[in-house]
Amino acid sequence: MAILDRIESPADLKLLTHEECLMLAAEIREFLISEVAKTGGHLGPNLGVVELTMALHRVFDSPHDPIVFDTGHQSYVHKILTGRKDFSGLRQRGGLAGYPQRSESEHDIVESSHASSSLSWADGISRAFTRTGQLDRSVIAVVGDGALTGGMTWEALNNITDDNDRNLVIVVNDNGRSYAPTIGGMARFLNGVRSKGSYRDLQEGSEKLFSRLGQPGRTLYRGARGALHGFLSRASNNDHLYSNLDIKYLGPIDGHDLSAVEETLRQAKGYGRPTLVHVITEKGYGYAPAENDLADQFHAIGKIDPDSGEPVSPSAGLSWTKVFRQHLADIADVDERVIAITAAMLQPTGLDLLAERHPERVIDVGIAEQHAVTSAAGLAYGGLHPVVAVYATFMNRALDQLMMDVALHRAGVTFALDRSGITGPDGASHNGVWDLATLQVVPGIRIAAPRDAATLRELLSQAVKIDDGPTVIRYPKGSVPEDLVPLERRADGVDVLSADTPGVDTDVLFVTVGPMASVALEAAALLRAQGITCTVIDPRWVVPVAASVVEIARSHRLLISIEDGIRVGGVGTRIRQALRDAGVDTAVSELGTPDEFPDHASRDELLLEAGLTAAQIAQNVEEQVRGRRIPIARPEA
Amino acid sequence: MAILDRIESPADLKLLTHEECLMLAAEIREFLISEVAKTGGHLGPNLGVVELTMALHRVFDSPHDPIVFDTGHQSYVHKILTGRKDFSGLRQRGGLAGYPQRSESEHDIVESSHASSSLSWADGISRAFTRTGQLDRSVIAVVGDGALTGGMTWEALNNITDDNDRNLVIVVNDNGRSYAPTIGGMARFLNGVRSKGSYRDLQEGSEKLFSRLGQPGRTLYRGARGALHGFLSRASNNDHLYSNLDIKYLGPIDGHDLSAVEETLRQAKGYGRPTLVHVITEKGYGYAPAENDLADQFHAIGKIDPDSGEPVSPSAGLSWTKVFRQHLADIADVDERVIAITAAMLQPTGLDLLAERHPERVIDVGIAEQHAVTSAAGLAYGGLHPVVAVYATFMNRALDQLMMDVALHRAGVTFALDRSGITGPDGASHNGVWDLATLQVVPGIRIAAPRDAATLRELLSQAVKIDDGPTVIRYPKGSVPEDLVPLERRADGVDVLSADTPGVDTDVLFVTVGPMASVALEAAALLRAQGITCTVIDPRWVVPVAASVVEIARSHRLLISIEDGIRVGGVGTRIRQALRDAGVDTAVSELGTPDEFPDHASRDELLLEAGLTAAQIAQNVEEQVRGRRIPIARPEA
Repeated sequence: MAILDRIESPADLKLLTHEECLMLAAEIREFLISEVAKTGGHLGPNLGVVELTMALHRVFDSPHDPIVFDTGHQSYVHKILTGRKDFSGLRQRGGLAGYPQRSESEHDIVESSHASSSLSWADGISRAFTRTGQLDRSVIAVVGDGALTGGMTWEALNNITDDNDRNLVIVVNDNGRSYAPTIGGMARFLNGVRSKGSYRDLQEGSEKLFSRLGQPGRTLYRGARGALHGFLSRASNNDHLYSNLDIKYLGPIDGHDLSAVEETLRQAKGYGRPTLVHVITEKGYGYAPAENDLADQFHAIGKIDPDSGEPVSPSAGLSWTKVFRQHLADIADVDERVIAITAAMLQPTGLDLLAERHPERVIDVGIAEQHAVTSAAGLAYGGLHPVVAVYATFMNRALDQLMMDVALHRAGVTFALDRSGITGPDGASHNGVWDLATLQVVPGIRIAAPRDAATLRELLSQAVKIDDGPTVIRYPKGSVPEDLVPLERRADGVDVLSADTPGVDTDVLFVTVGPMASVALEAAALLRAQGITCTVIDPRWVVPVAASVVEIARSHRLLISIEDGIRVGGVGTRIRQALRDAGVDTAVSELGTPDEFPDHASRDELLLEAGLTAAQIAQNVEEQVRGRRIPIARPEA
Repeated sequence: MAILDRIESPADLKLLTHEECLMLAAEIREFLISEVAKTGGHLGPNLGVVELTMALHRVFDSPHDPIVFDTGHQSYVHKILTGRKDFSGLRQRGGLAGYPQRSESEHDIVESSHASSSLSWADGISRAFTRTGQLDRSVIAVVGDGALTGGMTWEALNNITDDNDRNLVIVVNDNGRSYAPTIGGMARFLNGVRSKGSYRDLQEGSEKLFSRLGQPGRTLYRGARGALHGFLSRASNNDHLYSNLDIKYLGPIDGHDLSAVEETLRQAKGYGRPTLVHVITEKGYGYAPAENDLADQFHAIGKIDPDSGEPVSPSAGLSWTKVFRQHLADIADVDERVIAITAAMLQPTGLDLLAERHPERVIDVGIAEQHAVTSAAGLAYGGLHPVVAVYATFMNRALDQLMMDVALHRAGVTFALDRSGITGPDGASHNGVWDLATLQVVPGIRIAAPRDAATLRELLSQAVKIDDGPTVIRYPKGSVPEDLVPLERRADGVDVLSADTPGVDTDVLFVTVGPMASVALEAAALLRAQGITCTVIDPRWVVPVAASVVEIARSHRLLISIEDGIRVGGVGTRIRQALRDAGVDTAVSELGTPDEFPDHASRDELLLEAGLTAAQIAQNVEEQVRGRRIPIARPEA
């Protein structure tokens, strides 16, 4: 790592010769493979942008020229080049975040891991620079071809082409993939660019080509066209069409040819107007195990052996995703109405098994949650039962569509929300702690939270039979027990997981949401040791509130709701309203995560911080029961 | 109305001769002008689609062939042709809805008034028809050029061009406008199509042209290009490019030439694959006052004199929108950092005055709320303070961007939410009753609800000075008092609007949200007549909960929160949590709207239905105070 050791900032990078740069690129790849192998992380995307990131930092002057990484999982090289070379704690508490993070470095601008936003950020920043007289500052958005399938980029392009007066460079990092290969008409076009014609020549000898053509020929200037312009382009006179299009286009460029990328970026910088640079890269470039992984080219990995690329400790047990994966495919085998939708995450959401068995019954819409949800309403209208499988955090992209297209029209659509609740190492923008609070306000919605594999299967089977409105099954990241507890009793749809003296007045009633059932059972055990009687129930369907929850609450002094989502506006508040509406005065204490963005850390660390461990809950409840904060009077039943 | 009287269903329409059709078109225009003049409604958009709607119903077989109207305010002609000719109660309780509504007719498919969703609906429906063997059914989406600025349409097009095997016709109703003229690069292109070249010929003599060219020439077939395809189109070999694009294009067609539209739709129907029909129409066509209204061509009007087009009773008093309009412009005069953003609603949101004074400080992004919000985060990063002015109902389109781009990055962006709370006649999908519940879960957000013009000005002035996170000012539709009440006392940021015995134990504490202050004051007066003592406070900033609200609550037996938003997950639940966290056991009863989609009716009717009139609240509170549902024990202070 002779050269990498000398790089503490982009300024150091600018001093290197071309030969040194090539050596540095090799060192960075070696560093990425050996470091990410130890911690896990986004390896493939970063191997693909080594030269591109180096070129960006050699041509532009970050942070004077802000670089906005779309999605941000491809920012490891950027971190290395901006003085962050300790990857030992990557994605762990106190270590480097997995995405850009402003608190780490002034070079980090946008922290969100949600795709397709970078063009809008860059549009806003560049407009502000122009309007406030910061005319020497460029803004660069680095966006993948996958993210271009998101509608936000279209909204942004329509605006960017409307105002030429700013230094804005859009780098399309075209590797043909998001997690899986990019879908849609756009992808077919980009594939064409990559696989034939001029680009093939460029890839095979771009430097040679450039030198042969001289300076004027070093870029292939193309008056590119703003999206729908082109859509209708033959309808008009071409000259007129082009005069309407105010974004310059440079490319395609071989993204692993450092000189070519630098040259093109310099040219783009010089234009002083919005310019799109089309760079072709290969995800996992330079690392055979990643290049050969056709599923996702090591998009995100756990700990691996760096030589073989094999997982160090392959996940042996069940995971929530695996249970969903298997059971949905089994359901679809017998229910022909079931069809699944993914927003560019076939494998991460577990739809790959269904796609293997019934390829025509999984639709990958691209990174397009809005379209996923509304087209699901259309599928339901046409007689099918769609299952939209999505990470909980990305569901916020489609709240309006869930409300106005699915719920208002009482469309039978099931949402399978993976990574709900606290997720952990991915950081603030990947957490799913907002799902219950935001989704429970949708009129007519039914939300289920399985506590184990058995209830996940049961609830999913129930949900796909409900055709008069939206259903949600939400479950967390990680491993899942097959059966959390031998069931004591099922009463009116509510599972009684543990009860001291059924039917008799009891001190505490725990109403648990999904995986928090195990915490509640532990807490109850601790309280019993203190002489406090407890009941633990799991309604499974948490929205709307089951009448039996209210009835059971009548015989308890204190109801504790536990959800691994935010407490503000959470399911607990709804339970309390249901009690109050029924005239049940049992005190209610809602437990949940705090009203803030969780930092990156393990799930257990975040639960501890939120006061949601069994010991913390037991102590909290004991104080409430022993203290004076609970009305002594019995509820009037 | 000789012919219109005979039309009870599309079947009747199909029997008419061409001459009769032309007469019917004139009758429908006359009907629309005279009827909508009496009630108010969306006049301009419907005058523009008379021939188009007739052609759709003559060529296709609704509802066997579902017609999906994007946004839906242009569905009046469709209602007339499907047997709904009693417009006397338009947008009133019991009368016709202002948008399609399934409960009215089997011909109505999509009820939502939110733009840009129709292509996704049509994509889903047509896929389902193909997969379930309903191969003889076509699906038609009717979408305006304005709605094409929304990213959902791009997501949908990317998917539609990915699957040719369905009967899907997209009719682009291109009138160059949404409310205001459509913005962006796309609009410049469409303007070009309209203003020169082949379209001008078509408009001037399309029938003649068609007959001259014979059947093969009757349409100008153009292998159209899916959005970003065209964007990069010169990068590739054109033949290859076109082979990638699987949507046919027909047009542009003069949308007021019934024969031409019918002919083209028949051709599109025959293709049996996704086809885009580009129809040029004029909003307000055939009615001089609308045609001459350059602001919005009578997009949505109140009651008018049908001859002159003049409002029958021009709104004299103050409205919330007018107060915002004036004060924001005044603020911007002295604060150069303030810049405003609208999503294609310059006038309705009141940004037109600022645009008059400082044209460069209002950005119209198109119907693109996602981009509006994220680009605002970028503007804030660049040193400005953006004010995003939007109807509350459309804010749900950008919850994720508010959370991940604005709040996570603590960007100083102010959201001015007009039409928050119950709106009324526009129906379910225009109501703003979800804003408090969905927005209060955003970490670090501050939400203000003015009760009158004076507090709106004060709160807006405060909000634009807050640069470390999102601020929201939310206010309803309609008229506003200048000062609701002479202020008794302002304590720690909370306005005490009315108090019986300050500092002494009191029965009831009303905590009001925005315009509900007036209702609370009335209810308090009714309760005092019953011997129940009351305090009424208005925190103005309702999120987070002010410490003084908690302190004041200590000396009251019962706290009643009143919000004109949904009770589930509302601000009331947050107030109660704040009390509980502080150990204050004052009973809390949260009042708000029910967890359902409000039907179209007046605001007063909906408040009555929600139990939110002063008399209903007083009765509710009296029952609680006199009844047994409030703990007798005083709170431990």
